[in-house]
Formats: sequence, C-alpha cells, structure tokens
Amino acid sequence: MAVTQTQNTNGEAHPAELNASKLVINLANELKPLPAPESLAFGETKTDHMLIVNYDPVTGWSTPEIKPYGPLILDPASSCFQYCPNVFEGMKAYAGPDGKPRLFRPQKNMERLTRSAERVALPPFDTNELLKLIQRLVAVESRWIPSQPGYSLYIRPTVIGTRAALGVAASDSACLYVIVSPTGPYFRGGTRPISLLAVGEHARSWPGGTGGHKLGLNYAPGFMPQRLAAKLGYEQILWLLGDDKKITEVGAMNVFVAIKRDDGDLDVLTPPLDGTILPGLTRASCIALTEAHNTGRLVLPGISPSQKLHTAECPVTMAEIVAWSEQGRLVEAFGVGTAVVVAPIGRIGFEGKDIILPIYEAGLGPLGKGLWETLTAIQVGKLEYDDWSVKCE
Amino acid sequence: MAVTQTQNTNGEAHPAELNASKLVINLANELKPLPAPESLAFGETKTDHMLIVNYDPVTGWSTPEIKPYGPLILDPASSCFQYCPNVFEGMKAYAGPDGKPRLFRPQKNMERLTRSAERVALPPFDTNELLKLIQRLVAVESRWIPSQPGYSLYIRPTVIGTRAALGVAASDSACLYVIVSPTGPYFRGGTRPISLLAVGEHARSWPGGTGGHKLGLNYAPGFMPQRLAAKLGYEQILWLLGDDKKITEVGAMNVFVAIKRDDGDLDVLTPPLDGTILPGLTRASCIALTEAHNTGRLVLPGISPSQKLHTAECPVTMAEIVAWSEQGRLVEAFGVGTAVVVAPIGRIGFEGKDIILPIYEAGLGPLGKGLWETLTAIQVGKLEYDDWSVKCE
Repeated sequence: MAVTQTQNTNGEAHPAELNASKLVINLANELKPLPAPESLAFGETKTDHMLIVNYDPVTGWSTPEIKPYGPLILDPASSCFQYCPNVFEGMKAYAGPDGKPRLFRPQKNMERLTRSAERVALPPFDTNELLKLIQRLVAVESRWIPSQPGYSLYIRPTVIGTRAALGVAASDSACLYVIVSPTGPYFRGGTRPISLLAVGEHARSWPGGTGGHKLGLNYAPGFMPQRLAAKLGYEQILWLLGDDKKITEVGAMNVFVAIKRDDGDLDVLTPPLDGTILPGLTRASCIALTEAHNTGRLVLPGISPSQKLHTAECPVTMAEIVAWSEQGRLVEAFGVGTAVVVAPIGRIGFEGKDIILPIYEAGLGPLGKGLWETLTAIQVGKLEYDDWSVKCE
Repeated sequence: MAVTQTQNTNGEAHPAELNASKLVINLANELKPLPAPESLAFGETKTDHMLIVNYDPVTGWSTPEIKPYGPLILDPASSCFQYCPNVFEGMKAYAGPDGKPRLFRPQKNMERLTRSAERVALPPFDTNELLKLIQRLVAVESRWIPSQPGYSLYIRPTVIGTRAALGVAASDSACLYVIVSPTGPYFRGGTRPISLLAVGEHARSWPGGTGGHKLGLNYAPGFMPQRLAAKLGYEQILWLLGDDKKITEVGAMNVFVAIKRDDGDLDVLTPPLDGTILPGLTRASCIALTEAHNTGRLVLPGISPSQKLHTAECPVTMAEIVAWSEQGRLVEAFGVGTAVVVAPIGRIGFEGKDIILPIYEAGLGPLGKGLWETLTAIQVGKLEYDDWSVKCE
C-alpha cells in the first residue's frame, strides 16, 4: 500500500502533512442548550462541533476543519467497517482555577495514538499539530465543560481507515476526527467498590497480539463475556492470561494491587507492559506518584511519609491474589483509567468462589484515595506537577 | 445492553424480526456501464444496488430495502468506528449453465455470520430471511455476473454496530447491508505458486480469542506484518502459533499440506477448528471431497481412484514441515478460500531459510488441481453435488 508520491493539486511533491495552521473553523448557526450536569450519561451527549481531517494517498492530509457536529458519510466497502483499522484515544479537559480548560499529559495520548495508527498501518501524522487542533476544539467547546467538581469534557480523537475497496490490504486513506462529550464522575453518590469476575476462557490480549495498543478492535471481543459476567452478578471482567492465570486488565482499565509487607510498607504491583497490557496514562501517572511519595517529592494524602510504596511492574497470578487474601495482606486492589481515574475493587469471583477485599469508609482504600486525590488535583490545576497539566489557550 | 421489549409504533409487543417478504426495491434511475472483465480488480467495482436493513432495540429490524448503491451516514460516535463489533461474509454468485446465478452452500455462510454476530453481541436475525434477500439482490444485479470462466459476482454481507454513544458496551443498534462486486480469477494468466513468510512474533489468533469467527477485527492486525513480509519479498504470511510453531492460516486463507506415504497414499492435513482457525467453507468442502474420493462417490480428476487421501484435521508444526520437506515427502501445500478457491504454495521463508515445494506445470499439484477443478465445476453448476449449488430465482 505504497503512498503515491506525486504532484498534488497545489503543486507539492509529497502528500501534505497535517498542518494546524491551515485550520478552518465553521461554527454552528445555532448552539444546543446545555444539559443539566446531573443528567449526563458517559459519552452520550454530543456537543456543537467536531474536528475532522481526511487523508488521501496522493494529496495527503486535507485542510483541518472544526465544523458543526454531524455524521460521517462513507462508502459501505470502507475498511473501517470491513477490516477495522480504527484507533482512538480517551482524554479529558478540566476547568482550571482560572476558568481555562486544561488537558492532562496530552502529548502522551498523542504518542500512543500515533503508535496505534502505525500498528494497523494507518497513515502517520504530526502529533504536535493534532494536539494544537484538539486544544482549539476544546477552546471552541469550552462552554460544554461543566464547572462542578468531578465533571469534565471527555475528548475522543479517532482515526479510521476509509479505503473503499474489499481487498484485504492496509487502508491507504483515513479520516481523523475528534468529538467531545461532557461527562460527570464515574461514581454518582460517592465511590463504591466494584465486583469483578475473573475470566480466563476468553482472552482480551495475548503475546504477539494488539492488547498493548489502543485499537477499537480490542474492545468488541469483550462485549459477550461482559454480558455473561453481568448475568452472574459481576460488574466488570478481570481478564486473565496464560496457564498460570496472570491478571492483565479490569474491564477497560489497568489494575493495581497493594500488599501489606511485614515491615508495614506496601508492595504496589501492576502487570508489566509486555505487549498484552494497555500502556495507560493513569497507570503511568500512578507509578510516578508512588515513586514521588518514596523520594519525598510529594506525599500522597492519607499515606504516612514514612510508609514506603514498593512499586513494581511484574506479573501477578490469581494464585498469588488468593494467597495474599487468605493471609490478610491484600489490602487494596483498584482499576485506573481516564474515565474512572481510580475505581476500588470489592470482590473478585474466581473458580466459583468470591475473594472479598477489605472495605473502606471512603470506598477507596488509603493508597487508592491518595492517588485519586493527587491525580484529580493535578488534573484541575489545583496542584502543579511538572508539566502534567496543559492549558488550552 | 438488554433489548427493550416494549410496544413499538406498530403496536407490536416485540422488536420486529428480519422479514424478507417486506422487501422494498427502489431501482436506480440510471445503470452504470459494465466494465471490461479483464479490468476488474478484486472488490473495487461497485454495482448499481445494495441491500440494507437497520436494527433498533425498540422497533427491531426495519423494512429491508434494495436501493441504489450509496454511502452509509453514521454518527461519529458509532460503535462500528470506536469498538469494531463488525462482522462479514464472503460469498460468490456464479453464472450457471442455464444463465441463472448460483450460490455455493450459502446457508453455511449464513450460519457462520449469525455465530459471528453473536460473538460480538450484535442483535440476532433469521438467516433464512437474509438468504432470501441476498438471492433477490443477486437476481437484481445479475447483469453484473461476468459470463467468462473463472469470473463471478463477489457478495459481501456485512453487519456493523451503530450504537451512537462512547460507553464501552455492546451495540444495541446495527446496520446489516450487502454489497456485491464483479470479480475475475485470483490468478490472471494462470495459477502460479505463492511465497509465504512464516511469522510467529505476531499472532493472528489465540486460544480464547476470536480467530474462529469471521470478524472484521481479525484482519487489521495483519496489515503491518503483511507489509513487513512484502518488503522481504514474500506475498503472504503463514501465521504460526505457540512455542511449537503450529501453522494456522495463510494470509486470509485456510491451509492444507499433502504428505506422501510409503504406500503411495497421501496424508492430507489441515489445522483443527480449535477456536484459532476460521471454519472456512472451502476448507470444509475440500475435506468432504477428499472423503468422497476415498469412498468412490466421486473421483478427483488427476488422482487415481486407488490412491487414498488420508485427511485429518490435526496440528501441523513447522518442525514437521521442515522434516517432510527434507525427506521429499511434502508434495503439496495450498491455501483455500472463497476468493482464491485453491492457491498453491511454492516457497515458505522460515528462520532465515526458504523451504521450497515441488513445482508443477499447472501451478497446482495433482491434489490441489483436482480439488480446484471439482469445486469450480460444482460452483458453476457443471457438476451437481448434494445441494451445494443453489440457484437465485
């Protein structure tokens, strides 16, 4: 699927690069009324505008456009329907103390998006340019960011293959678009522990597979097992892998467990990025914050400065989880992700029995709560930490 | 994602079933000129009409419509772009001796399509009704079936998730559509052996994965490895699985190997349907025809009636392939599928060396050629075999 490098209509010798300076903004004639924040369901509300850019193998990336939110119009033979070379990111814009929207480590999302696109052979693009375009879209849609604590504007950059032919081949055409949606806290009425069913007979990911990339195609295979888990009374799936039943992810979140050591410190464990685990931004930030706690650069609220957090990216098996639980050492387990930030795990169904985790008044245990409070403080700009929080001018 | 069973606008108590008798046909005002058959590239030519039906969780399946070929208009948050619950089938309509279009074992495609839909939690549908609709579409588009030998009308039934919300959940809405495209023989200018690169570091499928279903999402992960193989001078990938490097599929085809026994018979081996292998219709038909040869019900042309074909669905490892090749017993290997029928394998790159297979004047060896001739004779109605060839009235 070689890109045809030829003169395009502008007399340029190569397909055009993505260029934010060419942005055209066509605003909607009429703006939608803002919904009551408490009525928001995740990802269901569409705002007034979206960003869209198309890639053609001859002419390259088209003029980026912010335009009224509307449907995509695509040939039914398009690769996105037939072979699913579709990638996306999940980001959030938060209202900062100055009222200005802020993004959380957005360049990390851009880096992951470009790796995802490469994995399914979609055309490359300049992530700095895309980030500028996203910042402009967020600025245009800033009235949609609810000002209440815990609310934000969810951002969904998406790239889909649009080659309109049925031959099984990489898509030489693509559509890059960004939609946004106002969203409330994952847990209404306070954080509460979730229940998991440990599932090994269906695999979310595998060595040599695509579980380490944020591809749309990683998600549909989980729908049917998720339905089965729900029928058995569990909210999410704890995905296992291999004969030794290693834990990998929780639903669509990364997972951490905290094990009490004899010396009072905590082992904080999360599965390693071996290609079967999504390299989550919240995951990476949690690891960084536990390390900052150890060095004293930052103290996680609710955790004693003298309590060290021995964080390790290492395989964790269900046999270990069972043993730590029986020994009373499994003090916390939680999922982390952009949508949820930190979600406590209360119960894990495994081989016909339930592993019950300790209950905390706040829903989250001390470590989960300390991470949640620190992350959300950085996200809304109450706490400055490196360059993690980025304004949209 | 429970289907809301409520009164719909027609006063019915349940979502409507797919119903071919409700079909509405809106023909194009102007028909496209037919392209020269020799100019056809696989899956690139769009005909005049398509079939489309939509599923809504309250009202069920809409009135099926055959209408002028045209684009799909979909919300950018749609599940098909974001999470890829998209399934399809590949079928062909052939011009029969009476000029009437014929399908090859189409109910088998319908059964596989409904299993695929179930695997990604798409709404169910009556496959008999869908087959009737496909037969009507083929009849409407019958002028597009080229009359030359080796040509046919490729049929692509597709179901995509159309739930327009970003929450990671099964799609409660769907669009079922069928497009067709005239197509020529896979090999122009005569069958010739293809070259394969054996790849184990990327996995097409996995135990507990979705490789045993015809999902769009199984294909995009192969694009990047396929590009790497092409750069090394190989046409397709031989997908390996596991530490013992079992062969699974060739590109998007099932694979067979033929091993000469000391008694002059052939072992005919293909990987078993353990969930990692697509249950191909051509694969199943090849197995059935080798068994028919053994019982004498049908003699494969070019194969002596006294030569038995010991067909087995069993794991085949690369170590076995290497050993059989060195012993001079690996007499044939070929890929099979709807698009190609039977494609001979000439060379397999493995661990830095090439395994070279015997060369035959016809491109295909005796077994591959016997299967190809018998299958194509049944497909075009020259040879009647059970109810494998089905007319579109």
